[in-house]
Amino acid sequence: TRGRVALVGAGPGGVDLLTVAAVRALSDADVVLTDRLAEVGDLGALAPGAEIIDVGKRAGHHAVPQSEIERIMVQRALSGLTVVRLKGGDPYVFGRGGEEVAAAVAAGLPVTVVPGISSAVAVPGSAGIPVTHREVSHVFTVVSGHVPLDPRRAEALVHLGGTLVFLMGMHNLVPLTTALVRAGLPEETPAAVVERGFTPDQRSIVGTAATLPDLVASAGAASPSVIVVGEVVRQSEVWERRSDSHGVRSGPVGVA
Amino acid sequence: TRGRVALVGAGPGGVDLLTVAAVRALSDADVVLTDRLAEVGDLGALAPGAEIIDVGKRAGHHAVPQSEIERIMVQRALSGLTVVRLKGGDPYVFGRGGEEVAAAVAAGLPVTVVPGISSAVAVPGSAGIPVTHREVSHVFTVVSGHVPLDPRRAEALVHLGGTLVFLMGMHNLVPLTTALVRAGLPEETPAAVVERGFTPDQRSIVGTAATLPDLVASAGAASPSVIVVGEVVRQSEVWERRSDSHGVRSGPVGVA
Repeated sequence: TRGRVALVGAGPGGVDLLTVAAVRALSDADVVLTDRLAEVGDLGALAPGAEIIDVGKRAGHHAVPQSEIERIMVQRALSGLTVVRLKGGDPYVFGRGGEEVAAAVAAGLPVTVVPGISSAVAVPGSAGIPVTHREVSHVFTVVSGHVPLDPRRAEALVHLGGTLVFLMGMHNLVPLTTALVRAGLPEETPAAVVERGFTPDQRSIVGTAATLPDLVASAGAASPSVIVVGEVVRQSEVWERRSDSHGVRSGPVGVA
Repeated sequence: TRGRVALVGAGPGGVDLLTVAAVRALSDADVVLTDRLAEVGDLGALAPGAEIIDVGKRAGHHAVPQSEIERIMVQRALSGLTVVRLKGGDPYVFGRGGEEVAAAVAAGLPVTVVPGISSAVAVPGSAGIPVTHREVSHVFTVVSGHVPLDPRRAEALVHLGGTLVFLMGMHNLVPLTTALVRAGLPEETPAAVVERGFTPDQRSIVGTAATLPDLVASAGAASPSVIVVGEVVRQSEVWERRSDSHGVRSGPVGVA
């Protein structure tokens, strides 16, 4: 008998931000294909009895190529197993979910997709930055920061306005903010980096499009982080004033 | 003793797409403020013993004004109760979460925000449309379709490219697609409406920027629906070919 494939979003990290459907899919799995982006804690407890295959990058090793991931996924399912491909965030947000669905469909396998909490919205939110806010932003754009912004795209982003969220962009923070300012973004536009969202080490570096790169360098902030640019960033000041805040702000544009 | 406030994302509908943290927050709640956008099924079972207050629109009645929702939320929490404000999707995606956080902070209350699965990504995904797809789209923009697009914003969206997602835009489908085409979007750009995502009645209407409004009118599709525009819409054809598809396609740009 034929097995099946489920692409499952793991959310931004931790069991708490898994969905009920994701927990069930893991507990039903015969095989779980995972990588370092899917940080759900004790996977062995969530998927008891399943074979856990780490297809992610490990120190000194290369990642398993995407084609090989798809081959393993399809082969196991064709042999009758229930295969979960666990993916950080949502499978369709820079997750290559569409390619993995296509591989399963091409093999004639039943396939389901369980959405996950995407860092694009949730990590800014965890720092009190709403991607939309009444009378401030009714539009948000999520961009891969993996490659620098070309000037035309930067111009379109600036003309569009609203909230900009860059994922995987920390190594490009200077070129990204520079491209936006060159394209006409006011230098004083609020901008933030939210580092290690949903971990005990989470922190926010809040500044402006002009000051953020230096603030981030001083703070020594690094990946994984989400970059947010726009007026909504000001709402993080409200968040820092809450009575159960654990954050320490060093100043109005300092490390929160 | 003072109580506390938790803003909790309910996701796009159904218990399965609640997070583990959301389920726990509901089970711990003394009071749940909910509305018709937060369709989680049997709320009484999820929040046993809690007072459930429906602050949403009901037939023949007006919605409770936002200020009154915040007043009830704050008052109950100040009286020592654990208050959950349950919100459809994610609290920060057109959810007025930022305002409710500000109200709780102003009252000196502890406040937490539990992110939810946003329809903006999950509903297209449920129809096999990935908001990002390798070599097709590395950027997506989520826009409120509540008001028509002004020509400058439409131009910026067209210049930006990538995937456009409109929420709450069904009553503006004609002006939205017209504004995009007038701003330079090729008429043959794939476009879809995904109606009633994650319900048994879910269906997709797939066409182009030029044909979608007529297809939607013929199909009689209505709110709640998500509108998606961009090359990623083509991936829905792969999804319809999966072996466990329950959909019936009437044609290459027909109702799926």
